[in-house]
Amino acid sequence: MAKTKKKSKLKIIPLGGLGEIGKNMTVMEYENDIIVIDCGLSFPDEDMLGVDLVIPDMTYLEENFDRIRGFVITHGHEDHIGAVPYAMQKFSAPVYGSKFTLALIKHKLDEHKIKSADLRTVVAGDVIELGCFKVEFIKVSHSIAGALAVAVTTPVGVVIHTGDFKVDYTPIDNEPIDIARFAYYGTKGVLALMMDSTNAEFFGSTPSEMELGATFEKVFDAAEGRIIVASFASNVYRIQQIADVAIEHGRVICFQGRSMEMIADIASELGYLSIPKESIVGIEKLKKYSDNEVCVFTTGSQGESMSGLFRMANANHKLNIGHGDTVVISASAIPGNEKAVGKVINQLFQRGANVVYDRFADVHVSGHARREELKLMMRLIKPKFMIPVHGEARHLYHHALLAESLGISRSNIFVMETGSVLELSARSGKIAGSVQSGNVLVDGAGVGDVGNAVLKERRLLSHDGMFVMVIAIKRSTGELAAEPEMISKGFVFAKDSEELLNEVKAVAKEHAMMFSSCDKSEWGNVKNLIKSAVKSCLYAKTKRTPLIHHVFLEVD
Amino acid sequence: MAKTKKKSKLKIIPLGGLGEIGKNMTVMEYENDIIVIDCGLSFPDEDMLGVDLVIPDMTYLEENFDRIRGFVITHGHEDHIGAVPYAMQKFSAPVYGSKFTLALIKHKLDEHKIKSADLRTVVAGDVIELGCFKVEFIKVSHSIAGALAVAVTTPVGVVIHTGDFKVDYTPIDNEPIDIARFAYYGTKGVLALMMDSTNAEFFGSTPSEMELGATFEKVFDAAEGRIIVASFASNVYRIQQIADVAIEHGRVICFQGRSMEMIADIASELGYLSIPKESIVGIEKLKKYSDNEVCVFTTGSQGESMSGLFRMANANHKLNIGHGDTVVISASAIPGNEKAVGKVINQLFQRGANVVYDRFADVHVSGHARREELKLMMRLIKPKFMIPVHGEARHLYHHALLAESLGISRSNIFVMETGSVLELSARSGKIAGSVQSGNVLVDGAGVGDVGNAVLKERRLLSHDGMFVMVIAIKRSTGELAAEPEMISKGFVFAKDSEELLNEVKAVAKEHAMMFSSCDKSEWGNVKNLIKSAVKSCLYAKTKRTPLIHHVFLEVD
Repeated sequence: MAKTKKKSKLKIIPLGGLGEIGKNMTVMEYENDIIVIDCGLSFPDEDMLGVDLVIPDMTYLEENFDRIRGFVITHGHEDHIGAVPYAMQKFSAPVYGSKFTLALIKHKLDEHKIKSADLRTVVAGDVIELGCFKVEFIKVSHSIAGALAVAVTTPVGVVIHTGDFKVDYTPIDNEPIDIARFAYYGTKGVLALMMDSTNAEFFGSTPSEMELGATFEKVFDAAEGRIIVASFASNVYRIQQIADVAIEHGRVICFQGRSMEMIADIASELGYLSIPKESIVGIEKLKKYSDNEVCVFTTGSQGESMSGLFRMANANHKLNIGHGDTVVISASAIPGNEKAVGKVINQLFQRGANVVYDRFADVHVSGHARREELKLMMRLIKPKFMIPVHGEARHLYHHALLAESLGISRSNIFVMETGSVLELSARSGKIAGSVQSGNVLVDGAGVGDVGNAVLKERRLLSHDGMFVMVIAIKRSTGELAAEPEMISKGFVFAKDSEELLNEVKAVAKEHAMMFSSCDKSEWGNVKNLIKSAVKSCLYAKTKRTPLIHHVFLEVD
Repeated sequence: MAKTKKKSKLKIIPLGGLGEIGKNMTVMEYENDIIVIDCGLSFPDEDMLGVDLVIPDMTYLEENFDRIRGFVITHGHEDHIGAVPYAMQKFSAPVYGSKFTLALIKHKLDEHKIKSADLRTVVAGDVIELGCFKVEFIKVSHSIAGALAVAVTTPVGVVIHTGDFKVDYTPIDNEPIDIARFAYYGTKGVLALMMDSTNAEFFGSTPSEMELGATFEKVFDAAEGRIIVASFASNVYRIQQIADVAIEHGRVICFQGRSMEMIADIASELGYLSIPKESIVGIEKLKKYSDNEVCVFTTGSQGESMSGLFRMANANHKLNIGHGDTVVISASAIPGNEKAVGKVINQLFQRGANVVYDRFADVHVSGHARREELKLMMRLIKPKFMIPVHGEARHLYHHALLAESLGISRSNIFVMETGSVLELSARSGKIAGSVQSGNVLVDGAGVGDVGNAVLKERRLLSHDGMFVMVIAIKRSTGELAAEPEMISKGFVFAKDSEELLNEVKAVAKEHAMMFSSCDKSEWGNVKNLIKSAVKSCLYAKTKRTPLIHHVFLEVD
């Protein structure tokens, strides 16, 4: 037994979050014990048409469900908690996280009507034992309350996973990242470091949340009408900071947008957000106040259609934005959302509002560490092995180069892919195979049933629509049993295309004559002739390639 | 007659390019004379599914075709020339532009098989008379060769339209923007200035094209393998500059990608690009050279799928990028393309290439003037009326504020919308109504036939696909004449969803029994019952909302 133990290796298996910013999930495994760090979702890429969200493929965990000792969640952002409800439908292991993280998870579980989950609150400094693993939680700074890193003591050494973090010496809650604790582990000796790579392309350090204060003071000093702030609902530090300035300026606070209202409730209840009750008013009571007494917080900082800000900018909200209003977009566009955000800004200007956004004012800071902060952490933690995580290939690559520049040897740096298995002993590490992993698409009630075939059809349909030809023939004689029917959706506008549709119908009918004049054994060929004639006719006239489908009904 | 003339106003009518960066087209009209400045296209927004391109609604010009004296094209970018082939199918007025601009237009007309267009080359300093208008062409700096501004002397005063420009004192062709000529007009007196607003949000000045030289020297000094450069094909200054460095470093040049090869040909033939013939080699001959003797120019700097760079990064090109290669992306992402560009960068890193891009090196400068340059031009030209053009609302708004800060009174600044009519006399200006304008969508062979109805269907189809139920009943008895047929495309994967589809079929059949048991006058109700039952069943099982269509065939 002693011998076996000596030989055993620690396995680190990312099931998501590498080569992407999204659906973070990492398996740590030693002999009979597995822990899972984070359990997030991704939002669908633009080519995943109609998909609601993406979760990690958890097949490997399902195959080893009886060895899972716990889920350890670093913080409450969607890309770290979004797949918890799906995991809880399959696994019964306890879920550990800070009070705020678990409150957000609880809300999700309620929405999914899952009651059985075993949620266990931890605070920074807590150490829990999960099988052979000892997990200590360490306070970090991030753009959400209750963010924690973990130091996992394993039989082969300590592995630190930073979660998402930045180094903020002056955070709003006055509880800075516990760099001393990272230094403690660094001095004791750390086997491996898994560290947030999101901002590895950015030089310098991410400014402190506190530094935005001056901007908000200026905006509130200058504004003569209503102020509408769009930000991430989960960034309660931001909301606290702006709310303080608003109240100081004699304004009441109104929360708008589903997630904004939900999170404001939860954060207030748990004490993460501290706004006097009398300063919070519902939208129906806003009329009682003059414009310069109002500050509205809303969702929509990413230009999401149907969000609060989007509807306010499109005159589709009780609170319509117009002349005299100041809109602060206290966020920056997540890659892929630039155009949507730009559109909302344009609409707001067109409605006469003054818009304050990141190109013209310091209204946002990132929640992720830049290169100087990454260097600080690597110098403090002094890991033997370095594993950049939480990034696209470009971020991981630059993070790895940075680690190398600090003297970590290239062979000790692992730029991993989702599904790869990293085996670590106290002295050596290597990629040893891989497990099943990837995207599981959630669409409506379906989890995993939408695959490439369906997506390909949606792509074709989105491009040139669909054309269906229905031809009914008498089984006995091959004569047409009714006029052919055609369906055109997303292809041409039927009312304006009567001529085209009549022509196609004529082509089909002409060829369909052959059914009655040939042997039944030839009907397959006739069908192919019709298909090909219809396709040619449609393309010749429109130069479009809709998805074409033919129904040949043989009727009695 | 003299009296009439005194009363006449100059009309300025943008048919595109305001509230958007794209499809620039401006009508200037005085009494019986019309000239058109630029004639561009836009690329479709992400919600214009399947649309190939967007051109301006030219109805107003069609209604006044006999008054058009000429098209004046400032430069050869798509958003200034892309709609010329469509205009030339309707109008016969001559088209004026620089040699390079017209060569690019000629290429387009050839592709459209249009032979009749009357193209007339001008050079900076030329003055042409078009009806009552005198048009002088003035050299400006931009990211394409042959860019010209125009000073239009009209019966009520001089109107200057800058086209796209930046102020580059050290351009690659050593022919800087002719700021003295703008000063000349400014001193004489300018009624109105229409000026490029693209970069009105950016402080300072756009750096000179020349300043990129140092970066390219560094990249070529360091690279040990092949160098692949992705840039805009039409930026011949950029290509010239990099090609010079490449040749100096003992490398041959290979052009890849349709537009890159086409424009390199045209630019070389016209003398805008000067690369020794022996330095240009075809891809099939690249093998003869060692890696450090090769420099490839390719399209794909925007991450466009099927572009040269995209295919090279996806192992779908004769020239596959891998370890040892250096890829320079000498462009920045146009808003909306950030994610596509990011994907290509990730793929290149994953293939082992070194990627040099704007976040890490000065590999690109904009072709548009920033705030300091805009101020310079406004101070030189001293217009009575200011009309920010070529921008989204946010750009126009900030440009207008900037003009105001220079002392142009707010009432003399017109932030216009596409289709608005600005009437100017020598002393006053006002928005006086509007003309028909907007987006005409080009899809395949169709120009303008794809409208909101078709786009809405494509959106629905892209989201949850389509489901078609075909039910044939005997006209005489109402009995089913065949098994119901179902088509599912982009909705569920038919092979995995047999159970669902059988259930839906059973629901439909059960309700269809009623056809035979009720009076024919009730059939409409039965059809509605079937529709609603099928819809409910599909939604209950999938929580998806495909586009559902029913075909009820009555057969003899």
